[in-house]
Amino acid sequence: MINVGIVGGTGYTGGELARLICSHPGMELKAMTSRGNAGKPVDSVHGYLKGYVEMDFQASIENGEGLDLIFLATPHGVSMEHVPGLLDMGLKIVDLSGDYRLDDEKVYSQWYGKGHDDKDNLTKAVYGLPELFRESIADAQLVANPGCYPTASILALAPLFAAGVVKGDVVIDAKSGTSGAGVNPSIRTHHPVCGESVIAYNSGKHRHQPEIDLILHKLGEGGEVYFSPHLVPIVRGILASCYLDVNEVMTSTELQSLYAEFYSGERFVHVTGDGSIRAVVGSNHCQVAPVSLGGSKVAVFSSIDNLVKGASGQAVQCANIMCGMPEEMGIDFPGLGV
Amino acid sequence: MINVGIVGGTGYTGGELARLICSHPGMELKAMTSRGNAGKPVDSVHGYLKGYVEMDFQASIENGEGLDLIFLATPHGVSMEHVPGLLDMGLKIVDLSGDYRLDDEKVYSQWYGKGHDDKDNLTKAVYGLPELFRESIADAQLVANPGCYPTASILALAPLFAAGVVKGDVVIDAKSGTSGAGVNPSIRTHHPVCGESVIAYNSGKHRHQPEIDLILHKLGEGGEVYFSPHLVPIVRGILASCYLDVNEVMTSTELQSLYAEFYSGERFVHVTGDGSIRAVVGSNHCQVAPVSLGGSKVAVFSSIDNLVKGASGQAVQCANIMCGMPEEMGIDFPGLGV
Amino acid sequence: MINVGIVGGTGYTGGELARLICSHPGMELKAMTSRGNAGKPVDSVHGYLKGYVEMDFQASIENGEGLDLIFLATPHGVSMEHVPGLLDMGLKIVDLSGDYRLDDEKVYSQWYGKGHDDKDNLTKAVYGLPELFRESIADAQLVANPGCYPTASILALAPLFAAGVVKGDVVIDAKSGTSGAGVNPSIRTHHPVCGESVIAYNSGKHRHQPEIDLILHKLGEGGEVYFSPHLVPIVRGILASCYLDVNEVMTSTELQSLYAEFYSGERFVHVTGDGSIRAVVGSNHCQVAPVSLGGSKVAVFSSIDNLVKGASGQAVQCANIMCGMPEEMGIDFPGLGV
Amino acid sequence: MINVGIVGGTGYTGGELARLICSHPGMELKAMTSRGNAGKPVDSVHGYLKGYVEMDFQASIENGEGLDLIFLATPHGVSMEHVPGLLDMGLKIVDLSGDYRLDDEKVYSQWYGKGHDDKDNLTKAVYGLPELFRESIADAQLVANPGCYPTASILALAPLFAAGVVKGDVVIDAKSGTSGAGVNPSIRTHHPVCGESVIAYNSGKHRHQPEIDLILHKLGEGGEVYFSPHLVPIVRGILASCYLDVNEVMTSTELQSLYAEFYSGERFVHVTGDGSIRAVVGSNHCQVAPVSLGGSKVAVFSSIDNLVKGASGQAVQCANIMCGMPEEMGIDFPGLGV
Repeated sequence: MINVGIVGGTGYTGGELARLICSHPGMELKAMTSRGNAGKPVDSVHGYLKGYVEMDFQASIENGEGLDLIFLATPHGVSMEHVPGLLDMGLKIVDLSGDYRLDDEKVYSQWYGKGHDDKDNLTKAVYGLPELFRESIADAQLVANPGCYPTASILALAPLFAAGVVKGDVVIDAKSGTSGAGVNPSIRTHHPVCGESVIAYNSGKHRHQPEIDLILHKLGEGGEVYFSPHLVPIVRGILASCYLDVNEVMTSTELQSLYAEFYSGERFVHVTGDGSIRAVVGSNHCQVAPVSLGGSKVAVFSSIDNLVKGASGQAVQCANIMCGMPEEMGIDFPGLGV
Repeated sequence: MINVGIVGGTGYTGGELARLICSHPGMELKAMTSRGNAGKPVDSVHGYLKGYVEMDFQASIENGEGLDLIFLATPHGVSMEHVPGLLDMGLKIVDLSGDYRLDDEKVYSQWYGKGHDDKDNLTKAVYGLPELFRESIADAQLVANPGCYPTASILALAPLFAAGVVKGDVVIDAKSGTSGAGVNPSIRTHHPVCGESVIAYNSGKHRHQPEIDLILHKLGEGGEVYFSPHLVPIVRGILASCYLDVNEVMTSTELQSLYAEFYSGERFVHVTGDGSIRAVVGSNHCQVAPVSLGGSKVAVFSSIDNLVKGASGQAVQCANIMCGMPEEMGIDFPGLGV
Repeated sequence: MINVGIVGGTGYTGGELARLICSHPGMELKAMTSRGNAGKPVDSVHGYLKGYVEMDFQASIENGEGLDLIFLATPHGVSMEHVPGLLDMGLKIVDLSGDYRLDDEKVYSQWYGKGHDDKDNLTKAVYGLPELFRESIADAQLVANPGCYPTASILALAPLFAAGVVKGDVVIDAKSGTSGAGVNPSIRTHHPVCGESVIAYNSGKHRHQPEIDLILHKLGEGGEVYFSPHLVPIVRGILASCYLDVNEVMTSTELQSLYAEFYSGERFVHVTGDGSIRAVVGSNHCQVAPVSLGGSKVAVFSSIDNLVKGASGQAVQCANIMCGMPEEMGIDFPGLGV
Repeated sequence: MINVGIVGGTGYTGGELARLICSHPGMELKAMTSRGNAGKPVDSVHGYLKGYVEMDFQASIENGEGLDLIFLATPHGVSMEHVPGLLDMGLKIVDLSGDYRLDDEKVYSQWYGKGHDDKDNLTKAVYGLPELFRESIADAQLVANPGCYPTASILALAPLFAAGVVKGDVVIDAKSGTSGAGVNPSIRTHHPVCGESVIAYNSGKHRHQPEIDLILHKLGEGGEVYFSPHLVPIVRGILASCYLDVNEVMTSTELQSLYAEFYSGERFVHVTGDGSIRAVVGSNHCQVAPVSLGGSKVAVFSSIDNLVKGASGQAVQCANIMCGMPEEMGIDFPGLGV
């Protein structure tokens, strides 16, 4: 039994971690922290956890006694305040923020608008996408859990980059549900604004663009990655539609074979014939649908639940690996389907 | 041609007024005020008005020169600061806030949580529901535009109260789109919170309850009104489902006849067989569907667009009447339908 | 380990049963039948079950060998064709249709528009609402799983009927997500029709009305039940808003105490302060919020996931009880929350 | 006053035409036909037209006496049955189907899966996008009204094709509301299926791809057009996100200037800073937002209401031009905004 804590437990990914961990047969939730809600019962903030998480938020983790692993569900810039101390306590860490995903402090500064305060650990952190970096995750003390968009996008494109067939640039047009924007109300997520609309935002300027670019180019060659996110009026789910050219013409069937082989044996990645979010909502699964558009042009549609495979579910998956437990433990259930 | 101004133009009802007035053949929009956006182009706040409303927000109305009528789209408690001065300028006023809807300052204080600063005008204001108070509106200098829920609810129940057949209490279960909550983001209208939910709120405690109660009892006898609002994940529209007993058993057909007669000749109220919001969205129309549930129990379903017939469209309808223009001018078009 | 089969596996409740059973530690899914899809892989119809349910639909259950219990996810009128034969095979049955919920064949005929072909078993069936009829369910061979609306409504009102405080009629205004309409497309569930609307339908004429009425009056005295369902544009979830008078005035706090005591020890029913669907989606939980509206008028808001506590989750709960397993086994997890 | 008829009046575009025409000061609706609903009142099918369109559907147009122009709101393949006869009657025609949009019968056959029965008129028809082909439309007797996706896509890309700066292929990732799928229920538009999902469909295989390709290449050189449509859970609206390279690097500001100049004087096309559907819903307006993604990569976001500028509003715009009326007559109002 692994004893875990969640730092930053009032947001959606913090609540989702607690939701998953409370049913996890190998993990026990020992502590949840919250600066703003310290002293309050967790289920007074996350009503759906009533009967499942019976503890109060505490102000901090203190000395880490009795804990094996910490999930950092803290905002960008806050995680790096916590990491060095927690590592010193000998704890394993899965950080759900963007603080340790980019391995170059200059790139970090450029996209996150602030300097990095923990450069040593920046380069030691392992990128927590198990389907690509399972072995490194197993040995890591600090895992940078991927962003929601990068998870969908990288799983969509990894087989082509790894096969060395990418020709030129890649355009990713991603559609996300509103839970990706987090727990704090804003103009963009105000229902009258987003409820019957599709909103393009931060095209070419989203922090997930360099993250996707970095990881894909570790796998193989290819042009630039252009990332264009959109908000759609659903609560959970991302569909990333990726467009690119390949340097050897392949039919949809050939593409599907290549993908099926690449993801052979993976519990959470499925190759399907078409792109849709519905089937994966509520689950840690990802569906990837590569399609030939004619000639050398290829589209790949990739769908995940942004809060599960795109955040807390993947964090549990990483934690399982880091702690030597079966990778799928506690997250091995199908999506809602409808 | 009537020259009008809008005080408090940054909210949804202010923008909606401008949207309607810019196509109104007998009304010209001369000024829009905003405390927070004074000096900014109106279409920088309401992008959809680009090409239709080409003016800047001004800080205030000043002396009212060149104006005939003011729409107050200000919050509760703010309208009463403006009314005395504007009346002194000789302007007609349609107030979209709740400040002048209740005729008793004590009831106002009880439900709005503050004293009333303009008691004189409180009792002079005419309730702006044209289907019931057309003649008084024509003579009024100050009209209190009804709330969105009261518009739907009163139109649903007026024929039965007026017929004197109401037996006992009335329960109104109303479902509103999120635009009714206004332009400012909040937890309840945060899409991840309301997007896949129905939320009951303020049951028996909503300010619209005494408003509905007051007006219905002006029409005839009946028991108490209990009002229970709900938020549903649509942007525009209200469906008020009203339940009551009548003291003489009527079939659905008989009820429909009574309603058809009561609303005979009305341009904006239609008696239909079942309740649904879709047909009235984008329009000033109201659909009312009375149904016998068996025995003496009756349900009446009433649907409107909360921003049109429930707010700005009705305000234009009142202004038309106050200014001697055809009542339907500028608002005589069908709903979107789909 | 209990071996189960699902008859009628292509609809939403059939798929949902499979989704729950595949993670159930004490239940094994041995067979799913489908008239239309016999011979096809289950996951070709329910894509989200890929990797979890690896079998083909079969045409029928045949002799029942190797099976302990059958879930009938068949339409009204079809279940009664299957029941006698399956009972003869010695199988336990949980029937999710309406065929055995009413104990009087005349009432059945009146509301379902056809005669009942299995009158003997009609009166032997036990109504499968564990919170009220746990002991009878434990001894039953045939359980009639409650309808979705009745589950929400009866749990909302049972404490008041059982306390004998109901005065006069009860009005239930229920709002349901579209999955309640089943897997077959129709005008009412066509997205352009229902997507930005609320639709009242079958007021006073819905088959769930006599079901609610029957069960509540088994618990205690009270007037007529009037049931008025509405379709809202969400996929999962029901909020039943119930209105009634009580014969002794109670504050909201007193009501909550009465409810808390009534449901004391229940794993799946929670007394809360306000009504909302969000917290229970994806779970077998029900939230019940009784509120005093002033005087003797009371509102009770009750929310469930219509496919889980309102159908398949409750069916599993009943099956657990019938088979002597812990009642919460396989369905003891929180809702998605967001 | 122009007298018009609508052939095929039961669908969404037929109803929308009637909605617009009933408020059009220069157009009078004389007849609506429907094969299935002949003899029924129009407002029994389109309830929102009650009080505005008071006629019965007729079975056919007969001899065209008293009519000046016909809108064909008939399905693909059906319009070509009507066109020759109607032209012979001397009527002007705006065809909202795809039958006359492609000028090559072989391309038509390839994409529409059937031969073309009216080849003579196929090459005579004028493509009804006023912003590009205003003069030809003025002289045309037969106008092929553009598809919804092509309207958004072509308006997004025309300035760049016309400027001769397009380098290589163009990818269009379009998101459409469900009303684009028409009035008939289907699996894909069943609310439980599409309500909380995004669905990619017909990527590279949609009939609108050759239409977009054809028109853009009439304007200038450029690579292939790849079109990838998606269904999103909104009722009205399309956002087309277009991605391409330009052969001279331009900043977002430079792109906006180029677009502003190209669309200078256009009543219905607006250059904005970012892509969103909300502002144009309910109107004939199109918003186009060109953005530099860095280097030579450009994104252009284009939004319309699919039933107005993407269908019936544009058809009215064309009819106005064909009949020598002001182009914006009857469709010159802002979007709902919220």
